[in-house]
Amino acid sequence: MLSLLDLRARIDAGRLTPDGAIGLVREAIAHREPEVGALVCVDAAPVIPARGPLAGIAVGIKDIIDTADLPTRMGSSIYETWRPRADAPVVARLKNLGAVPLAKTTTTPFAFLDPTPTRNPHDPGHTPGGSSAGSAAAVAAGMLPLALGTQTGGSVIRPAAFCGVVGIKPSFRLLPTVGVKCYSWALDTVGLFAASVADAAHALALMADRPAIAHMGDAGAPRIGIVRQEFCAAPDPEAEAALAKAARAAERAGAMVRDLALPGTFGEAFAVHGTLQDYEARQALAWEYATHRDALPPLLRAALDAAQGIETPAYDAARRTAHHARRGLKDVFSENGFDVLLTYAAPGAAPAGLANTGDSRFNRLWTLMGVPCVTVPVERNAAGLPVGVQVIARFGDDGRALAAAGLVERALRG
Amino acid sequence: MLSLLDLRARIDAGRLTPDGAIGLVREAIAHREPEVGALVCVDAAPVIPARGPLAGIAVGIKDIIDTADLPTRMGSSIYETWRPRADAPVVARLKNLGAVPLAKTTTTPFAFLDPTPTRNPHDPGHTPGGSSAGSAAAVAAGMLPLALGTQTGGSVIRPAAFCGVVGIKPSFRLLPTVGVKCYSWALDTVGLFAASVADAAHALALMADRPAIAHMGDAGAPRIGIVRQEFCAAPDPEAEAALAKAARAAERAGAMVRDLALPGTFGEAFAVHGTLQDYEARQALAWEYATHRDALPPLLRAALDAAQGIETPAYDAARRTAHHARRGLKDVFSENGFDVLLTYAAPGAAPAGLANTGDSRFNRLWTLMGVPCVTVPVERNAAGLPVGVQVIARFGDDGRALAAAGLVERALRG
Repeated sequence: MLSLLDLRARIDAGRLTPDGAIGLVREAIAHREPEVGALVCVDAAPVIPARGPLAGIAVGIKDIIDTADLPTRMGSSIYETWRPRADAPVVARLKNLGAVPLAKTTTTPFAFLDPTPTRNPHDPGHTPGGSSAGSAAAVAAGMLPLALGTQTGGSVIRPAAFCGVVGIKPSFRLLPTVGVKCYSWALDTVGLFAASVADAAHALALMADRPAIAHMGDAGAPRIGIVRQEFCAAPDPEAEAALAKAARAAERAGAMVRDLALPGTFGEAFAVHGTLQDYEARQALAWEYATHRDALPPLLRAALDAAQGIETPAYDAARRTAHHARRGLKDVFSENGFDVLLTYAAPGAAPAGLANTGDSRFNRLWTLMGVPCVTVPVERNAAGLPVGVQVIARFGDDGRALAAAGLVERALRG
Repeated sequence: MLSLLDLRARIDAGRLTPDGAIGLVREAIAHREPEVGALVCVDAAPVIPARGPLAGIAVGIKDIIDTADLPTRMGSSIYETWRPRADAPVVARLKNLGAVPLAKTTTTPFAFLDPTPTRNPHDPGHTPGGSSAGSAAAVAAGMLPLALGTQTGGSVIRPAAFCGVVGIKPSFRLLPTVGVKCYSWALDTVGLFAASVADAAHALALMADRPAIAHMGDAGAPRIGIVRQEFCAAPDPEAEAALAKAARAAERAGAMVRDLALPGTFGEAFAVHGTLQDYEARQALAWEYATHRDALPPLLRAALDAAQGIETPAYDAARRTAHHARRGLKDVFSENGFDVLLTYAAPGAAPAGLANTGDSRFNRLWTLMGVPCVTVPVERNAAGLPVGVQVIARFGDDGRALAAAGLVERALRG
């Protein structure tokens, strides 16, 4: 994979120019893209800033994020020829930092569950996950050092795990969702994919203009709560094994590790995620549903058909349940003295075939809670496919989540 | 003015068809628009649904709200020829209810302070206010029975007061802001203008799919706290007189009315509104600022120039201050036993000239609190210009705000 910090170090040392770094990326794309199919389009002649803390860094932009210089197709024929007027603020910010939004990456249509043609770089017979399929796969394939995705259920953490890269879904609204095609305004969160925890932390700290995110130190001896999310179906043994391995590694590195059973409030919140998401999606995609229903892919069409029946009081009740759980989560951290939680990133490795982008059940509660989540790759399963874990911190504690994720990452290497 | 409920009653009784109702509106537009200048464009051949609870109701859509069938110019030359792909969810919802989004209404550029050419229907030498200038003026001029606006500081409540119409800024996110050009994602709120409180309540209840909003009964004998917002400069005597008159009328109608001095927390929250708004605007309009700064109008350009200097810790501190005040506001209501608050809608009647859209200082705190606010017209000043008051309820208590506003409206008539 291409490390953002490594590229930047070579540029800072005068051993590589920003133009040269973009050239490396183009070579990697020429080599890997035909097999992986992670990109919707590549800018043939982008502006390449000579300066800036991210100068020379090519970034993949999930194709539901508006770009003024490249089409934005939402993964849908309805937007086949669409070109937004403006860059989304996250894209404008990247340019302002010197980065080059070089390519649009594949997304499932409107970031729901219907698959993309993208293949898992570790085995083209497997899905890379979704909905941020292209962003995860492009970083995993070494084509891009950084890519933007979004998560409404598990669309960053899950594909990062399936592709063996680091993914971060930051605290809700740490990065603006303006100019990002909406599915659920209470849930949609812009996230990042990178080759390492340090790369992801560096990029997020710059994008959010909060240097502390990348400078939490070595996390000292964090107190880690192991969470198994018993309110949903158990994962595959390989996910359980990865969680146990990560926990042992963290403990060896000095962390205090303890099991934690979440109160029933969180099972209730988990159960209402779909009500909240789908009621908002019905509104967010009302024009598409009213005027182009037949052009919607089958899983999304069925979901929106069903969503028409959700009663407004059920939505209001779901919001109250989520609000109650968000408050309760603060107590879970403080009463138990935990710095972070550690849990599954996905039920197992990437499923076989491209028809199914995998299951987000271990991600949905945390998106609903709005808390920062980080995927750390742990190991390969018997078939050679990556399996990861998920590190979770309090709302606004993105730096601590990344610091603990970095500790786990280093401990697994050591 | 055109009353939505009156038009609907005539349609329901078979005395008017939806086509006929749209025809009435077109006649009114032909008669009044040349003087008022409230409309950016009118749909020459819209679909006019025969059925639906809002069939026959022509609606004005503020020109920062996306429409698939009409241009969306944001009040700016940068978007002169812009046509969005999709309707914003609020527009799709109106169509679904049978309404006709007939016209786009003028907006200050990007809903900031630079004026529109729209004139106050009560005196063409005065501003209608802003930023939802055209929506307020079109309803006031009897051209439209309903119009959508947005409020980030005081862009619904203030122009409603200046134009002598009812305006409601609902609870934050009661109506989705998806497809609405963002200025500040923590503040932007979609609101409505109508000829009476009952008209506004009926439309909001339908748009939000919450019938209770229009069926709170006659508000019984509400407990009303009079708030003078001493943390900012005092209003003109005419605004003070309107507040006193509305309070007396409410008391005569059976309300319990008492003065309420807000704790210092709210002055602090008021003071950080601009930090929060401008820091987000700098991001929301980053593309426009980076690529078309010279095409931005002077007040907005100066505001964005200044916003570049806001430090991220100041923004984070502003968010904490606002969060603290939001919690405190719940206590203000419950400890004092108030159903609603009553305060100024603006510092006075519409200023003379078109260069200045007026001051939002009596609106900004309440936008930041996310609570429902309603403008009720009270009287005309010596120059014949309307002066109104503002009714405010708890977050989520939109029905109670409208019920109390209805009581004040009736009491003033009686």
